[in-house]
Amino acid sequence: MNEVAGRRARSGGGASRRAERTAVSFESARFIQRNIPNFEILNEEALQIIEWNAETVLEEIGVNFVENPAALDLWRAAGADVKGERVHIPRGLARKLCATAPSSFTQHARNPDRNVEVGGRNLVLAPVYGPPFVRDAEGGRRYATLEDFQNFVKLGYMSKWLHHSGGTVCEPTDVPVNKRHLDMLLAHMTLSDKPYMGSVTEPSRAEDSVAMSKILFGNDFVDQNTVMTSLININSPLTFDGIMMGALEVYAKANQAAIISPFIVGGAMAPVTVAGTLTQVLAEVLAGVAYSQLIRPGAPVIFGAFVTSIDMNSGAPTFGTPEAAHITYGAGQLARRLGLPYRSGGSFCGSKLPDAQAAYETANSLNMALLAGVNFMLHACGWLEGGLVSSYEKFVMDADQLGTLHHLAQGVMMDTNGQAMDALREVGPGGHFLGCEHTQANFKSAFWRSDLLDYKPFETWAEEGARDTQALAAERVKKQLADYHAPDMDPAKREELEAFVAQRKSEMPDAFI
Amino acid sequence: MNEVAGRRARSGGGASRRAERTAVSFESARFIQRNIPNFEILNEEALQIIEWNAETVLEEIGVNFVENPAALDLWRAAGADVKGERVHIPRGLARKLCATAPSSFTQHARNPDRNVEVGGRNLVLAPVYGPPFVRDAEGGRRYATLEDFQNFVKLGYMSKWLHHSGGTVCEPTDVPVNKRHLDMLLAHMTLSDKPYMGSVTEPSRAEDSVAMSKILFGNDFVDQNTVMTSLININSPLTFDGIMMGALEVYAKANQAAIISPFIVGGAMAPVTVAGTLTQVLAEVLAGVAYSQLIRPGAPVIFGAFVTSIDMNSGAPTFGTPEAAHITYGAGQLARRLGLPYRSGGSFCGSKLPDAQAAYETANSLNMALLAGVNFMLHACGWLEGGLVSSYEKFVMDADQLGTLHHLAQGVMMDTNGQAMDALREVGPGGHFLGCEHTQANFKSAFWRSDLLDYKPFETWAEEGARDTQALAAERVKKQLADYHAPDMDPAKREELEAFVAQRKSEMPDAFI
Repeated sequence: MNEVAGRRARSGGGASRRAERTAVSFESARFIQRNIPNFEILNEEALQIIEWNAETVLEEIGVNFVENPAALDLWRAAGADVKGERVHIPRGLARKLCATAPSSFTQHARNPDRNVEVGGRNLVLAPVYGPPFVRDAEGGRRYATLEDFQNFVKLGYMSKWLHHSGGTVCEPTDVPVNKRHLDMLLAHMTLSDKPYMGSVTEPSRAEDSVAMSKILFGNDFVDQNTVMTSLININSPLTFDGIMMGALEVYAKANQAAIISPFIVGGAMAPVTVAGTLTQVLAEVLAGVAYSQLIRPGAPVIFGAFVTSIDMNSGAPTFGTPEAAHITYGAGQLARRLGLPYRSGGSFCGSKLPDAQAAYETANSLNMALLAGVNFMLHACGWLEGGLVSSYEKFVMDADQLGTLHHLAQGVMMDTNGQAMDALREVGPGGHFLGCEHTQANFKSAFWRSDLLDYKPFETWAEEGARDTQALAAERVKKQLADYHAPDMDPAKREELEAFVAQRKSEMPDAFI
Repeated sequence: MNEVAGRRARSGGGASRRAERTAVSFESARFIQRNIPNFEILNEEALQIIEWNAETVLEEIGVNFVENPAALDLWRAAGADVKGERVHIPRGLARKLCATAPSSFTQHARNPDRNVEVGGRNLVLAPVYGPPFVRDAEGGRRYATLEDFQNFVKLGYMSKWLHHSGGTVCEPTDVPVNKRHLDMLLAHMTLSDKPYMGSVTEPSRAEDSVAMSKILFGNDFVDQNTVMTSLININSPLTFDGIMMGALEVYAKANQAAIISPFIVGGAMAPVTVAGTLTQVLAEVLAGVAYSQLIRPGAPVIFGAFVTSIDMNSGAPTFGTPEAAHITYGAGQLARRLGLPYRSGGSFCGSKLPDAQAAYETANSLNMALLAGVNFMLHACGWLEGGLVSSYEKFVMDADQLGTLHHLAQGVMMDTNGQAMDALREVGPGGHFLGCEHTQANFKSAFWRSDLLDYKPFETWAEEGARDTQALAAERVKKQLADYHAPDMDPAKREELEAFVAQRKSEMPDAFI
């Protein structure tokens, strides 16, 4: 079980050491380290065409950095041709600037057993991000509250296959917009010991995220280490708005990681073809990552690609589609050629319920993301209804499925035990393997097993109420929230964080836009 | 839409030509021709180890050909060391014998537009095979009848993404065991014009399948062409029973295709490790295919692998698991190195209902099969509850998802239109692509679109009854069965087939075992 670490939370201080002896934290798998190849859908010629075209886009069409005169100055100084807010980047310049970004980085968690390595052959899984609504089997669909937010952080902390606590697991709509980030960060910092994301909705909120992280980790530690990975969306096509760039500037200066991510519904925010979309994705990431390196060379960044297709009949975004898979595979190849960690994939679906549609679309998305070489998967569990809803049941359903990705990534063991020739000799034609020595020695770890899905005989299942997956998941949610207990934490640190939140809230009037 | 063929059924004869002018058959996609790479999980060294070990199994452990003295004679004459019913095959002999099997073949349908090419980069999709039960949303789970069988043949005929009518789409348990095959074949031949499978449960039933095919296609045509692909299961581990081999002998002699397929629940019928299972799969297929070539060199065969994992807690087979994926990927590589078409994959799941579990497991299975290079996918739709149940709703749900495989397999278009540079130039930063010329020219074919799943806004969906996927599928089933009409057929041929069935039934007392 070397993949599972962190049975016990670590922390400093005498009081917490005493607490540690009584509190047991929940089992959590180590981030995925792939031992399988990536799926490479584009050949060398196709990759070169897309790379050439992306540079053409940057030079000839250019990108807009809006309401951000300082960014225009930086670009001008770097050698770009700036006309108004339009930045034309000469062929090769953006790629050259990207070269200072690290190919992988460690994001630290307050429990060091839960640090994650972002990049290389690794895959880090983080939960759904952004939905204003939640849904559960009993209560249906409703606006999310801070209590929901805290519940999802708890579920994430207790999910064995989830490596990261995420960011806006749902929008706590009962808290003023300008104060939400404080409560969200406090929840991630106190209710979980997994790594987390910072706020990006305002540069000042990014500053608060850094300040709270300094309380949690210490000033020096945060100066020297990455403790947050935050989501910087590009306003596709080819537009970098001032607020998002302001947050990026805060994080890059503080050496904190950012996902630089086009947000694209194909056919609306990008061309309707896969190669055209990949061209735009690459151009946008090149410009965004280059800009991060203009702010601070060496700042950790991730090549992001949130791309899905559209239903041309209704205009609705569609998920788990073949075209989304093509783009996810292709963008992974482009990211690796650029030497950057890659963010894509997730438990995407358009369904309103955690039903078969949701699961088909989600499984399509999760599988492609694993094989596409994704390094950081946001939305890995809990996503419903095109991202409008965080689903309690789907959160635990998807989180269970994430186990399959861990086992898929292990590849095939080819040692003597894996070859199993002794078992074949022992059993022979017409025998069976259940009782043989090799099976007995390996059965515990040989096959992945769901902790949630139904494997019972029909009769037992029928007697127990003929429950579907949603019903099983609803029970799991209740049990997990009932079983939850917080990871150890130095009470002084918690008080300091709470005091910071109270102080910052008192400095601002409530705002709901 | 060059992927879609056969809007009209073709047939001979004046009466049928007149009928043709009024009857329109249903749209059906051409078999998949992949334009994407395969996913190769094993490296050269691993493949060589498995190939070496499989030859060791054949030589040292051997395989059993039971109750089949003629087979033992053939093996002895070919150079094997036969002790009792145990056949020890010297290293290299089986592989050498396999060399006469074709690397691909055409299976003819009575509508030539629906012929399929089995092998190469192609993928042919056929429905679920074998369940004794059916389930639908209204009637629940019950023993299957001939009416159910006919319904599933109709649904398969009307499924755009299904290329093959299959075989035992469910067991018509209301018909005597020794007469079922006649009614099943008659249904495939008259209610559909897609290719079909023959009976394998007795050599005489294989003979009947050949005889009925000769009525349908003509004697000469069947002698010279393959018109059936039938499923020959190996009794794993390493056992070839007389009945299945008897059916194989009939088909091989008649130049009709057979899938030579280990049937393995890992840990029970094969070692609990992936490499050990692959070794056994390869040994079994080598022996089975070699035997088919001893019967008739050049007889068309398929390298089969039905392999899944087991839940070591309950002993239940489990589906859509990582280990099943590893085996499916690895067996594909072994099949290609052997130069044989490859059968694996399907809409596998263990769930009792067409719910999220069913869809996760199915999507995992379908995706891996596409990337594993499968050429013939039995069970591609309708499989439920570990294969005990043919589900009406899941049949149409899965059949819809098969569309994603078609589009995935197309790969990425890299021509000028695909590159979409004009669209990027036309729209520019901050614009949107919905109205641009390139989008208008491409939107109809750019993105795969489900014909079944829900893409509606939340409010519309709620007003229309907040239906889940099963409910949408139940409606689809009813509509399809109501809309069904049979493909054109020469009435004289139908009468001849019906007379054959009546004659054969009259020659045998009913048997229910």
